[in-house]
Amino acid sequence: MQNRNRSVRSLWAVLTACLAQTGFAGDATPAPATSQELYPKGSQQSFKGPEQFFTGDVQVQMLFPGNDTAHYSGAYVTFQPGARTAWHYHPAGQHMVITDGVGLTGTRDGTILTFKAGDAVWCPPDIDHWHGAGPDSAMTHLVITGSKDGENVVWKEKVSDEEYQAGRE
Amino acid sequence: MQNRNRSVRSLWAVLTACLAQTGFAGDATPAPATSQELYPKGSQQSFKGPEQFFTGDVQVQMLFPGNDTAHYSGAYVTFQPGARTAWHYHPAGQHMVITDGVGLTGTRDGTILTFKAGDAVWCPPDIDHWHGAGPDSAMTHLVITGSKDGENVVWKEKVSDEEYQAGRE
Repeated sequence: MQNRNRSVRSLWAVLTACLAQTGFAGDATPAPATSQELYPKGSQQSFKGPEQFFTGDVQVQMLFPGNDTAHYSGAYVTFQPGARTAWHYHPAGQHMVITDGVGLTGTRDGTILTFKAGDAVWCPPDIDHWHGAGPDSAMTHLVITGSKDGENVVWKEKVSDEEYQAGRE
Repeated sequence: MQNRNRSVRSLWAVLTACLAQTGFAGDATPAPATSQELYPKGSQQSFKGPEQFFTGDVQVQMLFPGNDTAHYSGAYVTFQPGARTAWHYHPAGQHMVITDGVGLTGTRDGTILTFKAGDAVWCPPDIDHWHGAGPDSAMTHLVITGSKDGENVVWKEKVSDEEYQAGRE
């Protein structure tokens, strides 16, 4: 598993530029300090979750970038039934606020939490986790993802069907 | 205005304990560092916006507290038509993601932004602002409010009808 993690983790270096372009990685343009900044609907990047890091149909809609004061970005992420992230961790943690549907999120200790609209989940820094829809329901959550030294996610291997289904047994 | 601000601001000291009890002020219990933390719907404080700091019918539903890593809390705040906050600033800034309806937010320079579902707004640290519903429509936003030295908001005087209506002219 160590070797596997290392090789999959090396994908991160290769794909950093791609993700930075899509606005998915790290902080972006600092906000001006003297007035409020409006990010109109549809003005931020929207993209399909890349095959390397997601299983199934996933759509990311950025809401706001990080800035010099607030070292976190916001995005809606929608998973169709059965879809989920790969294993990954966030160097500065992540909050997830479920806005629609029912989802699952798992950690290496075998715990799989079921969450639904109105629930929130905090994933502490450097904890491997995955998140996604339930097998029979789509899920949308608003994620608030911290950034540390310009890095907000480190990707690992995909979540197997066995790992995903373990929460249903 | 200075004297008025000072006297209104002094309310803050008196009401800090009240707001801390309601979970509206600053960071709360640190999350554990080794597993994810679930905040089920309805498990966090919900309260009516206090008369001292809000005009009209405002409901606050906390979603998650701040913690040792993430120095911000999350909440849904719903304003009925015409309702708004008093003037205030956030020492560590605030993001607002509009989830339903149409709202307004103003700053001392006379700018009033209109925002609607899907828009986000960043208010930088120490900038006086107010936010609320439009005169004819309710508005709900998810606010992510930073905390600095345990303080996440400093309240000032109420927004007059003239200030509120200036955005409609």
